[in-house]
Amino acid sequence: MILVNGVQTDCVAASDRGLMYGDGVFRTMVMCGGQPVSWDRHFLKLSADCAALRIPCIPKEIFDRELETLGASHPDCVIKIVVTRGEGTRGYSVTSALQPTRILSTSPMPTYPDAYREVGVKVRLCDLRLSYQPQLAGIKHLNRLENVLARIEWDNPDIPEGLLLDEHGIVISGTMSNLVLFKGETLVTPDLSRCGVAGVTRQRIMSMVAEWGFQVKVQPISLQVLMEADEVLMCNSVIGVWQIVEFQEKAWPAGNLVHRIRAALHDGN
Amino acid sequence: MILVNGVQTDCVAASDRGLMYGDGVFRTMVMCGGQPVSWDRHFLKLSADCAALRIPCIPKEIFDRELETLGASHPDCVIKIVVTRGEGTRGYSVTSALQPTRILSTSPMPTYPDAYREVGVKVRLCDLRLSYQPQLAGIKHLNRLENVLARIEWDNPDIPEGLLLDEHGIVISGTMSNLVLFKGETLVTPDLSRCGVAGVTRQRIMSMVAEWGFQVKVQPISLQVLMEADEVLMCNSVIGVWQIVEFQEKAWPAGNLVHRIRAALHDGN
Repeated sequence: MILVNGVQTDCVAASDRGLMYGDGVFRTMVMCGGQPVSWDRHFLKLSADCAALRIPCIPKEIFDRELETLGASHPDCVIKIVVTRGEGTRGYSVTSALQPTRILSTSPMPTYPDAYREVGVKVRLCDLRLSYQPQLAGIKHLNRLENVLARIEWDNPDIPEGLLLDEHGIVISGTMSNLVLFKGETLVTPDLSRCGVAGVTRQRIMSMVAEWGFQVKVQPISLQVLMEADEVLMCNSVIGVWQIVEFQEKAWPAGNLVHRIRAALHDGN
Repeated sequence: MILVNGVQTDCVAASDRGLMYGDGVFRTMVMCGGQPVSWDRHFLKLSADCAALRIPCIPKEIFDRELETLGASHPDCVIKIVVTRGEGTRGYSVTSALQPTRILSTSPMPTYPDAYREVGVKVRLCDLRLSYQPQLAGIKHLNRLENVLARIEWDNPDIPEGLLLDEHGIVISGTMSNLVLFKGETLVTPDLSRCGVAGVTRQRIMSMVAEWGFQVKVQPISLQVLMEADEVLMCNSVIGVWQIVEFQEKAWPAGNLVHRIRAALHDGN
Protein backbone atom coordinates (compact mmCIF):
# COMPACT_ATOMS: atom_id res chain seq x y z
CA MET A 1 0.00 0.00 0.00
CA ILE A 2 1.40 3.38 -0.99
CA LEU A 3 0.23 6.85 -0.02
CA VAL A 4 1.63 9.73 -2.07
CA ASN A 5 0.77 13.01 -0.40
CA GLY A 6 -2.00 11.18 1.41
CA VAL A 7 -3.57 9.63 -1.66
CA GLN A 8 -3.46 5.90 -2.31
CA THR A 9 -1.64 5.39 -5.59
CA ASP A 10 1.45 3.64 -6.86
CA CYS A 11 2.60 6.56 -8.93
CA VAL A 12 4.73 9.67 -8.47
CA ALA A 13 5.17 12.64 -10.80
CA ALA A 14 7.89 11.93 -13.36
CA SER A 15 9.26 15.43 -12.75
CA ASP A 16 9.69 14.89 -9.01
CA ARG A 17 13.14 15.99 -7.89
CA GLY A 18 13.42 12.82 -5.84
CA LEU A 19 13.62 10.97 -9.13
CA MET A 20 15.50 13.61 -11.13
CA TYR A 21 18.28 14.21 -8.60
CA GLY A 22 17.74 11.96 -5.59
CA ASP A 23 16.73 15.22 -3.94
CA GLY A 24 15.13 13.93 -0.78
CA VAL A 25 15.47 11.79 2.34
CA PHE A 26 13.93 8.60 3.66
CA ARG A 27 13.27 6.46 6.69
CA THR A 28 12.69 2.74 7.03
CA MET A 29 11.04 1.40 10.15
CA VAL A 30 8.88 -1.39 11.47
CA MET A 31 5.14 -1.31 12.02
CA CYS A 32 4.33 -3.72 14.87
CA GLY A 33 0.75 -4.39 15.95
CA GLY A 34 -0.32 -1.26 14.08
CA GLN A 35 2.23 0.94 15.87
CA PRO A 36 5.29 2.35 14.11
CA VAL A 37 8.29 1.44 16.29
CA SER A 38 10.36 4.40 17.52
CA TRP A 39 8.35 6.75 15.36
CA ASP A 40 9.17 9.80 17.50
CA ARG A 41 12.87 9.19 16.97
CA HIS A 42 12.38 8.51 13.28
CA PHE A 43 10.45 11.71 12.85
CA LEU A 44 13.16 13.70 14.63
CA LYS A 45 15.75 12.22 12.30
CA LEU A 46 13.54 12.78 9.24
CA SER A 47 13.03 16.43 10.09
CA ALA A 48 16.73 16.92 10.86
CA ASP A 49 17.65 15.36 7.52
CA CYS A 50 15.12 17.57 5.71
CA ALA A 51 16.57 20.62 7.44
CA ALA A 52 20.10 19.62 6.43
CA LEU A 53 19.01 19.63 2.79
CA ARG A 54 16.84 22.73 3.30
CA ILE A 55 13.68 20.82 2.45
CA PRO A 56 10.73 22.16 4.47
CA CYS A 57 9.62 19.23 6.62
CA ILE A 58 6.02 18.09 6.71
CA PRO A 59 4.22 18.40 10.08
CA LYS A 60 4.31 15.29 12.25
CA GLU A 61 0.51 15.20 12.54
CA ILE A 62 0.21 14.50 8.83
CA PHE A 63 2.50 11.51 9.09
CA ASP A 64 0.74 10.38 12.29
CA ARG A 65 -2.57 10.24 10.48
CA GLU A 66 -1.20 8.42 7.44
CA LEU A 67 0.74 5.93 9.56
CA GLU A 68 -2.49 5.19 11.39
CA THR A 69 -4.18 4.46 8.05
CA LEU A 70 -1.36 2.13 7.01
CA GLY A 71 -1.24 0.48 10.45
CA ALA A 72 -4.94 -0.28 10.32
CA SER A 73 -4.65 -2.30 7.12
CA HIS A 74 -1.04 -3.50 7.57
CA PRO A 75 -0.43 -3.89 11.31
CA ASP A 76 2.87 -5.77 10.88
CA CYS A 77 5.07 -4.62 8.05
CA VAL A 78 8.02 -2.50 7.06
CA ILE A 79 7.21 1.17 6.56
CA LYS A 80 9.22 3.38 4.28
CA ILE A 81 8.80 7.14 4.33
CA VAL A 82 10.32 9.22 1.54
CA VAL A 83 10.24 13.01 1.54
CA THR A 84 11.44 14.75 -1.61
CA ARG A 85 11.84 18.42 -2.41
CA GLY A 86 8.83 18.05 -4.72
CA GLU A 87 8.02 18.44 -8.36
CA GLY A 88 10.26 20.79 -10.23
CA THR A 89 11.09 22.12 -13.62
CA ARG A 90 14.38 21.12 -15.24
CA GLY A 91 17.54 22.38 -13.55
CA TYR A 92 19.13 22.23 -10.12
CA SER A 93 17.80 25.57 -8.89
CA VAL A 94 15.31 25.47 -6.06
CA THR A 95 12.42 27.88 -5.82
CA SER A 96 10.44 28.54 -2.69
CA ALA A 97 7.30 27.44 -4.54
CA LEU A 98 8.31 23.79 -4.34
CA GLN A 99 6.00 21.64 -2.23
CA PRO A 100 7.65 18.57 -0.69
CA THR A 101 6.34 15.18 -1.77
CA ARG A 102 5.76 12.50 0.88
CA ILE A 103 5.55 8.82 0.02
CA LEU A 104 4.60 6.30 2.69
CA SER A 105 4.66 2.66 1.69
CA THR A 106 4.33 -0.75 3.27
CA SER A 107 6.39 -3.85 2.50
CA PRO A 108 6.24 -7.31 4.02
CA MET A 109 8.63 -7.96 6.90
CA PRO A 110 11.70 -9.62 5.37
CA THR A 111 12.16 -13.28 6.17
CA TYR A 112 15.74 -13.82 7.24
CA PRO A 113 17.01 -17.19 8.46
CA ASP A 114 16.56 -17.64 12.24
CA ALA A 115 20.27 -18.34 12.44
CA TYR A 116 21.05 -14.67 11.76
CA ARG A 117 19.45 -13.77 15.07
CA GLU A 118 20.34 -16.88 17.02
CA VAL A 119 23.86 -17.63 15.81
CA GLY A 120 25.01 -14.56 13.94
CA VAL A 121 26.03 -13.64 10.42
CA LYS A 122 28.95 -13.90 8.06
CA VAL A 123 29.85 -10.64 6.35
CA ARG A 124 32.28 -9.65 3.62
CA LEU A 125 34.40 -6.61 2.84
CA CYS A 126 33.18 -4.49 -0.07
CA ASP A 127 35.61 -3.18 -2.67
CA LEU A 128 33.74 0.11 -3.03
CA ARG A 129 35.09 2.84 -0.79
CA LEU A 130 32.68 5.46 0.54
CA SER A 131 33.51 9.00 -0.46
CA TYR A 132 33.81 11.93 1.93
CA GLN A 133 31.05 14.47 1.72
CA PRO A 134 30.64 16.29 5.04
CA GLN A 135 27.57 18.14 3.70
CA LEU A 136 25.75 14.85 3.14
CA ALA A 137 27.34 12.62 5.77
CA GLY A 138 24.97 11.22 8.36
CA ILE A 139 21.88 12.10 6.31
CA LYS A 140 19.68 9.31 5.00
CA HIS A 141 19.25 10.95 1.61
CA LEU A 142 18.14 9.41 -1.67
CA ASN A 143 21.60 9.45 -3.28
CA ARG A 144 22.34 5.82 -2.55
CA LEU A 145 24.29 4.65 -5.58
CA GLU A 146 27.29 3.83 -3.42
CA ASN A 147 25.15 1.40 -1.43
CA VAL A 148 23.69 -0.08 -4.62
CA LEU A 149 27.11 -0.58 -6.22
CA ALA A 150 28.47 -2.09 -3.02
CA ARG A 151 25.50 -4.48 -2.76
CA ILE A 152 25.94 -5.57 -6.38
CA GLU A 153 29.43 -6.83 -5.59
CA TRP A 154 28.22 -10.19 -4.27
CA ASP A 155 25.21 -12.46 -4.55
CA ASN A 156 26.09 -15.27 -2.15
CA PRO A 157 22.82 -15.72 -0.22
CA ASP A 158 24.74 -16.91 2.85
CA ILE A 159 26.32 -13.48 3.24
CA PRO A 160 23.65 -10.96 4.19
CA GLU A 161 25.86 -7.91 4.51
CA GLY A 162 29.07 -6.30 3.31
CA LEU A 163 31.22 -3.89 5.29
CA LEU A 164 32.20 -0.56 3.82
CA LEU A 165 35.40 1.36 4.35
CA ASP A 166 35.94 4.97 3.43
CA GLU A 167 38.51 6.10 0.90
CA HIS A 168 41.19 5.99 3.60
CA GLY A 169 40.36 2.45 4.69
CA ILE A 170 38.47 3.43 7.84
CA VAL A 171 35.47 1.25 8.75
CA ILE A 172 32.15 3.10 8.31
CA SER A 173 29.15 0.78 8.13
CA GLY A 174 27.46 -2.06 6.29
CA THR A 175 25.61 -1.46 3.03
CA MET A 176 22.27 -1.36 4.90
CA SER A 177 23.33 -1.31 8.54
CA ASN A 178 25.47 0.45 11.11
CA LEU A 179 28.16 -1.06 13.28
CA VAL A 180 28.70 -1.07 17.02
CA LEU A 181 31.73 -2.79 18.51
CA PHE A 182 32.24 -3.84 22.10
CA LYS A 183 35.60 -4.10 23.79
CA GLY A 184 35.32 -4.73 27.51
CA GLU A 185 32.92 -2.17 28.94
CA THR A 186 33.20 0.17 25.97
CA LEU A 187 30.99 0.56 22.92
CA VAL A 188 32.80 1.96 19.90
CA THR A 189 30.96 3.05 16.77
CA PRO A 190 32.29 4.70 13.62
CA ASP A 191 32.50 8.45 13.31
CA LEU A 192 29.96 9.33 10.59
CA SER A 193 30.85 12.97 10.08
CA ARG A 194 32.34 12.45 6.63
CA CYS A 195 30.28 9.56 5.22
CA GLY A 196 27.67 7.02 6.30
CA VAL A 197 24.17 7.36 7.74
CA ALA A 198 23.67 8.17 11.42
CA GLY A 199 20.76 5.80 12.01
CA VAL A 200 18.11 5.69 14.70
CA THR A 201 18.88 2.15 15.91
CA ARG A 202 22.58 2.93 16.33
CA GLN A 203 21.57 5.97 18.37
CA ARG A 204 19.16 3.94 20.46
CA ILE A 205 21.86 1.36 21.23
CA MET A 206 24.35 4.07 22.18
CA SER A 207 21.87 5.63 24.62
CA MET A 208 20.85 2.28 26.00
CA VAL A 209 24.31 0.93 26.78
CA ALA A 210 25.37 4.30 28.21
CA GLU A 211 22.56 3.82 30.74
CA TRP A 212 23.91 0.35 31.45
CA GLY A 213 27.22 1.92 32.43
CA PHE A 214 29.19 1.34 29.22
CA GLN A 215 31.53 3.97 27.97
CA VAL A 216 30.44 5.10 24.47
CA LYS A 217 33.02 6.22 21.94
CA VAL A 218 32.41 7.60 18.45
CA GLN A 219 35.69 7.48 16.59
CA PRO A 220 37.44 6.41 13.41
CA ILE A 221 37.76 2.61 13.50
CA SER A 222 40.42 0.64 11.65
CA LEU A 223 39.86 -2.89 10.43
CA GLN A 224 42.32 -4.01 13.08
CA VAL A 225 40.25 -2.47 15.87
CA LEU A 226 37.17 -4.20 14.44
CA MET A 227 38.99 -7.53 14.34
CA GLU A 228 40.09 -7.16 17.95
CA ALA A 229 36.63 -6.30 19.29
CA ASP A 230 34.97 -8.76 21.65
CA GLU A 231 31.63 -8.50 19.92
CA VAL A 232 30.71 -6.74 16.67
CA LEU A 233 27.07 -5.99 15.96
CA MET A 234 25.34 -4.66 12.89
CA CYS A 235 22.05 -2.88 13.34
CA ASN A 236 19.20 -1.19 11.56
CA SER A 237 15.55 -0.52 12.27
CA VAL A 238 14.31 -3.61 10.43
CA ILE A 239 16.80 -6.29 11.48
CA GLY A 240 17.36 -4.87 14.97
CA VAL A 241 20.80 -6.31 15.77
CA TRP A 242 22.78 -9.23 14.44
CA GLN A 243 26.15 -10.33 15.71
CA ILE A 244 28.89 -10.63 13.12
CA VAL A 245 30.49 -14.03 13.78
CA GLU A 246 32.58 -14.41 10.63
CA PHE A 247 34.53 -11.84 8.63
CA GLN A 248 37.64 -12.53 6.57
CA GLU A 249 39.95 -14.80 8.58
CA LYS A 250 38.24 -14.07 11.87
CA ALA A 251 35.49 -15.98 13.69
CA TRP A 252 33.90 -14.64 16.86
CA PRO A 253 32.31 -16.76 19.58
CA ALA A 254 28.64 -16.20 20.30
CA GLY A 255 28.25 -13.09 22.42
CA ASN A 256 25.74 -12.06 25.03
CA LEU A 257 25.31 -8.41 24.29
CA VAL A 258 23.48 -9.01 21.03
CA HIS A 259 20.65 -10.74 22.90
CA ARG A 260 20.53 -8.21 25.72
CA ILE A 261 20.40 -5.32 23.23
CA ARG A 262 17.81 -7.03 21.05
CA ALA A 263 15.55 -7.53 24.06
CA ALA A 264 15.98 -3.92 25.12
CA LEU A 265 15.33 -2.61 21.59
CA HIS A 266 12.17 -4.67 21.53
CA ASP A 267 10.95 -3.38 24.90
CA GLY A 268 11.97 0.21 24.56
CA ASN A 269 11.09 2.86 22.09
CA MET B 1 5.28 15.90 -22.94
CA ILE B 2 6.56 12.84 -21.12
CA LEU B 3 6.92 9.28 -22.35
CA VAL B 4 7.50 6.65 -19.68
CA ASN B 5 8.46 3.37 -21.33
CA GLY B 6 6.89 4.67 -24.49
CA VAL B 7 3.57 5.64 -22.95
CA GLN B 8 2.49 9.25 -22.61
CA THR B 9 1.99 9.91 -18.91
CA ASP B 10 3.36 12.19 -16.23
CA CYS B 11 3.74 9.44 -13.69
CA VAL B 12 6.37 6.92 -12.68
CA ALA B 13 6.05 3.96 -10.30
CA ALA B 14 6.63 5.07 -6.71
CA SER B 15 8.83 1.99 -6.21
CA ASP B 16 11.16 2.86 -9.08
CA ARG B 17 14.77 2.60 -8.00
CA GLY B 18 15.47 5.89 -9.74
CA LEU B 19 13.38 7.51 -7.03
CA MET B 20 14.32 5.22 -4.16
CA TYR B 21 18.10 5.39 -4.64
CA GLY B 22 18.87 7.67 -7.57
CA ASP B 23 19.69 4.38 -9.29
CA GLY B 24 19.92 5.51 -12.89
CA VAL B 25 21.47 7.88 -15.40
CA PHE B 26 20.31 10.75 -17.57
CA ARG B 27 21.02 12.91 -20.58
CA THR B 28 19.95 16.44 -21.44
CA MET B 29 20.10 17.60 -25.03
CA VAL B 30 18.52 19.95 -27.49
CA MET B 31 15.87 19.11 -30.06
CA CYS B 32 16.30 21.47 -33.01
CA GLY B 33 13.90 21.42 -35.93
CA GLY B 34 12.65 18.01 -34.79
CA GLN B 35 16.19 16.55 -34.70
CA PRO B 36 17.93 15.70 -31.43
CA VAL B 37 21.35 17.38 -31.61
CA SER B 38 24.34 15.03 -31.26
CA TRP B 39 22.03 12.16 -30.46
CA ASP B 40 24.53 9.51 -31.57
CA ARG B 41 27.07 10.87 -29.10
CA HIS B 42 24.45 11.18 -26.37
CA PHE B 43 23.35 7.61 -26.89
CA LEU B 44 26.94 6.36 -26.71
CA LYS B 45 27.39 8.19 -23.41
CA LEU B 46 24.02 6.97 -22.11
CA SER B 47 24.88 3.37 -22.87
CA ALA B 48 28.38 3.74 -21.39
CA ASP B 49 26.90 5.22 -18.21
CA CYS B 50 24.33 2.42 -17.98
CA ALA B 51 27.11 -0.13 -18.40
CA ALA B 52 29.16 1.52 -15.67
CA LEU B 53 26.23 1.04 -13.26
CA ARG B 54 25.45 -2.41 -14.68
CA ILE B 55 22.04 -1.27 -15.89
CA PRO B 56 21.11 -3.08 -19.13
CA CYS B 57 20.80 -0.32 -21.72
CA ILE B 58 17.74 0.02 -23.89
CA PRO B 59 18.26 -0.43 -27.68
CA LYS B 60 18.87 2.76 -29.61
CA GLU B 61 15.99 2.04 -32.00
CA ILE B 62 13.51 2.42 -29.16
CA PHE B 63 14.85 5.85 -28.27
CA ASP B 64 15.00 6.80 -31.96
CA ARG B 65 11.30 6.09 -32.32
CA GLU B 66 10.30 7.96 -29.19
CA LEU B 67 12.51 10.94 -30.02
CA GLU B 68 10.80 11.08 -33.39
CA THR B 69 7.42 11.21 -31.63
CA LEU B 70 8.60 14.01 -29.36
CA GLY B 71 10.26 15.90 -32.20
CA ALA B 72 7.05 15.83 -34.24
CA SER B 73 5.07 17.64 -31.56
CA HIS B 74 7.94 19.62 -29.98
CA PRO B 75 10.46 20.36 -32.75
CA ASP B 76 12.45 22.89 -30.68
CA CYS B 77 12.86 22.05 -27.03
CA VAL B 78 15.12 20.53 -24.41
CA ILE B 79 14.96 16.75 -24.22
CA LYS B 80 15.78 14.88 -21.07
CA ILE B 81 16.26 11.13 -21.10
CA VAL B 82 16.35 9.24 -17.81
CA VAL B 83 17.10 5.52 -17.61
CA THR B 84 16.67 3.88 -14.20
CA ARG B 85 17.34 0.33 -13.08
CA GLY B 86 13.57 -0.13 -12.88
CA GLU B 87 10.94 -0.92 -10.32
CA GLY B 88 12.19 -2.86 -7.37
CA THR B 89 11.23 -4.20 -4.01
CA ARG B 90 12.72 -2.65 -0.89
CA GLY B 91 16.47 -3.07 -0.42
CA TYR B 92 19.63 -2.35 -2.36
CA SER B 93 19.97 -5.82 -3.91
CA VAL B 94 19.55 -6.04 -7.65
CA THR B 95 17.90 -9.00 -9.32
CA SER B 96 18.22 -9.86 -12.97
CA ALA B 97 14.44 -9.59 -13.28
CA LEU B 98 14.58 -5.79 -13.12
CA GLN B 99 13.46 -4.03 -16.30
CA PRO B 100 14.98 -0.59 -16.84
CA THR B 101 12.60 2.37 -16.92
CA ARG B 102 13.06 5.01 -19.60
CA ILE B 103 11.62 8.50 -19.26
CA LEU B 104 11.81 10.94 -22.17
CA SER B 105 10.51 14.43 -21.56
CA THR B 106 10.42 17.79 -23.25
CA SER B 107 10.96 21.19 -21.65
CA PRO B 108 10.95 24.65 -23.22
CA MET B 109 14.34 25.99 -24.29
CA PRO B 110 15.58 28.15 -21.42
CA THR B 111 15.61 31.89 -22.04
CA TYR B 112 18.95 33.23 -20.94
CA PRO B 113 19.93 36.87 -21.45
CA ASP B 114 21.58 37.46 -24.84
CA ALA B 115 24.52 38.96 -22.98
CA TYR B 116 25.55 35.50 -21.73
CA ARG B 117 26.31 34.52 -25.31
CA GLU B 118 27.46 37.86 -26.61
CA VAL B 119 29.43 39.25 -23.68
CA GLY B 120 29.97 36.38 -21.30
CA VAL B 121 28.99 35.47 -17.77
CA LYS B 122 29.95 36.18 -14.20
CA VAL B 123 30.41 33.09 -12.08
CA ARG B 124 31.04 32.46 -8.39
CA LEU B 125 32.94 29.89 -6.38
CA CYS B 126 30.78 27.38 -4.52
CA ASP B 127 31.54 26.43 -0.93
CA LEU B 128 30.55 22.83 -1.48
CA ARG B 129 33.47 20.58 -2.38
CA LEU B 130 32.86 17.62 -4.66
CA SER B 131 33.71 14.27 -3.14
CA TYR B 132 35.94 11.65 -4.75
CA GLN B 133 34.17 8.56 -5.96
CA PRO B 134 36.08 6.92 -8.79
CA GLN B 135 33.27 4.38 -9.30
CA LEU B 136 30.80 7.16 -10.08
CA ALA B 137 33.07 9.85 -11.50
CA GLY B 138 32.32 10.90 -15.06
CA ILE B 139 28.90 9.23 -15.05
CA LYS B 140 25.80 11.39 -15.40
CA HIS B 141 23.90 9.46 -12.73
CA LEU B 142 20.84 10.50 -10.76
CA ASN B 143 22.72 11.10 -7.48
CA ARG B 144 22.93 14.84 -7.91
CA LEU B 145 22.54 16.20 -4.39
CA GLU B 146 25.98 17.79 -4.54
CA ASN B 147 24.85 19.83 -7.55
CA VAL B 148 21.59 20.75 -5.83
CA LEU B 149 23.32 21.85 -2.62
CA ALA B 150 25.88 23.83 -4.59
CA ARG B 151 23.14 25.54 -6.62
CA ILE B 152 21.21 26.44 -3.46
CA GLU B 153 24.19 28.48 -2.24
CA TRP B 154 23.24 31.57 -4.22
CA ASP B 155 20.18 33.12 -5.83
CA ASN B 156 21.62 36.21 -7.49
CA PRO B 157 20.01 36.09 -10.95
CA ASP B 158 23.01 37.87 -12.48
CA ILE B 159 25.23 34.90 -11.68
CA PRO B 160 24.17 31.93 -13.80
CA GLU B 161 26.77 29.46 -12.63
CA GLY B 162 29.01 28.47 -9.72
CA LEU B 163 32.35 26.74 -10.00
CA LEU B 164 33.02 23.60 -8.01
CA LEU B 165 36.28 22.44 -6.54
CA ASP B 166 36.97 18.97 -5.25
CA GLU B 167 37.84 18.24 -1.64
CA HIS B 168 41.48 19.12 -2.35
CA GLY B 169 40.68 22.47 -3.95
CA ILE B 170 41.14 21.32 -7.55
CA VAL B 171 38.78 22.87 -10.14
CA ILE B 172 36.30 20.32 -11.51
CA SER B 173 33.30 21.94 -13.21
CA GLY B 174 30.31 24.20 -12.82
CA THR B 175 27.13 23.00 -11.13
CA MET B 176 25.53 22.33 -14.55
CA SER B 177 28.43 22.75 -16.95
CA ASN B 178 31.95 21.67 -17.76
CA LEU B 179 35.00 23.87 -18.13
CA VAL B 180 37.52 24.25 -20.90
CA LEU B 181 40.44 26.68 -20.55
CA PHE B 182 42.62 28.06 -23.27
CA LYS B 183 46.20 29.12 -22.78
CA GLY B 184 47.94 29.94 -26.04
CA GLU B 185 47.37 27.03 -28.42
CA THR B 186 46.42 24.60 -25.66
CA LEU B 187 43.02 23.54 -24.37
CA VAL B 188 43.09 22.36 -20.78
CA THR B 189 40.08 20.69 -19.16
CA PRO B 190 39.73 19.16 -15.70
CA ASP B 191 40.53 15.53 -15.08
CA LEU B 192 37.15 13.95 -14.22
CA SER B 193 38.36 10.55 -13.07
CA ARG B 194 37.49 11.14 -9.41
CA CYS B 195 34.45 13.42 -9.60
CA GLY B 196 32.43 15.41 -12.12
CA VAL B 197 30.51 14.43 -15.24
CA ALA B 198 32.34 13.79 -18.51
CA GLY B 199 29.85 15.50 -20.79
CA VAL B 200 29.23 15.24 -24.50
CA THR B 201 29.76 18.94 -25.29
CA ARG B 202 33.12 19.00 -23.50
CA GLN B 203 34.11 15.96 -25.55
CA ARG B 204 32.92 17.57 -28.78
CA ILE B 205 34.96 20.70 -28.04
CA MET B 206 38.06 18.65 -27.26
CA SER B 207 37.79 16.77 -30.57
CA MET B 208 37.03 19.93 -32.49
CA VAL B 209 39.95 22.02 -31.27
CA ALA B 210 42.32 19.07 -31.64
CA GLU B 211 41.39 19.11 -35.33
CA TRP B 212 42.12 22.81 -35.39
CA GLY B 213 45.65 22.06 -34.23
CA PHE B 214 45.30 22.84 -30.54
CA GLN B 215 47.03 20.67 -28.00
CA VAL B 216 44.42 19.12 -25.66
CA LYS B 217 45.31 18.39 -22.05
CA VAL B 218 43.16 16.69 -19.43
CA GLN B 219 44.70 17.37 -16.07
CA PRO B 220 44.10 18.58 -12.52
CA ILE B 221 43.59 22.35 -12.67
CA SER B 222 44.24 24.71 -9.78
CA LEU B 223 42.35 27.96 -9.30
CA GLN B 224 45.57 29.75 -10.19
CA VAL B 225 45.80 27.99 -13.54
CA LEU B 226 42.19 28.94 -14.21
CA MET B 227 42.88 32.56 -13.31
CA GLU B 228 45.86 32.67 -15.65
CA ALA B 229 44.02 31.18 -18.63
CA ASP B 230 43.49 33.40 -21.68
CA GLU B 231 39.91 32.31 -22.12
CA VAL B 232 37.72 30.18 -19.85
CA LEU B 233 34.58 28.63 -21.27
CA MET B 234 31.76 26.76 -19.63
CA CYS B 235 29.76 24.34 -21.73
CA ASN B 236 26.86 21.95 -21.76
CA SER B 237 24.48 20.58 -24.35
CA VAL B 238 21.80 23.19 -23.73
CA ILE B 239 23.80 26.41 -23.37
CA GLY B 240 26.50 25.42 -25.83
CA VAL B 241 29.41 27.59 -24.65
CA TRP B 242 29.61 30.78 -22.63
CA GLN B 243 32.77 32.64 -21.85
CA ILE B 244 33.45 33.34 -18.20
CA VAL B 245 34.36 37.03 -18.05
CA GLU B 246 34.19 37.63 -14.31
CA PHE B 247 35.17 35.41 -11.41
CA GLN B 248 36.36 36.61 -8.01
CA GLU B 249 38.84 39.45 -8.51
CA LYS B 250 39.49 38.60 -12.14
CA ALA B 251 37.89 39.98 -15.30
CA TRP B 252 38.69 38.56 -18.72
CA PRO B 253 38.48 40.48 -21.97
CA ALA B 254 36.07 39.21 -24.59
CA GLY B 255 37.63 36.23 -26.35
CA ASN B 256 37.33 34.88 -29.88
CA LEU B 257 37.33 31.17 -29.26
CA VAL B 258 33.92 31.15 -27.65
CA HIS B 259 32.34 32.35 -30.89
CA ARG B 260 34.36 30.07 -33.12
CA ILE B 261 33.48 27.06 -30.95
CA ARG B 262 29.82 28.01 -30.74
CA ALA B 263 29.60 28.22 -34.50
CA ALA B 264 31.31 24.86 -34.89
CA LEU B 265 29.10 23.22 -32.28
CA HIS B 266 26.11 24.53 -34.14
CA ASP B 267 27.29 23.24 -37.51
CA GLY B 268 28.70 19.94 -36.40
CA ASN B 269 27.15 16.99 -34.70
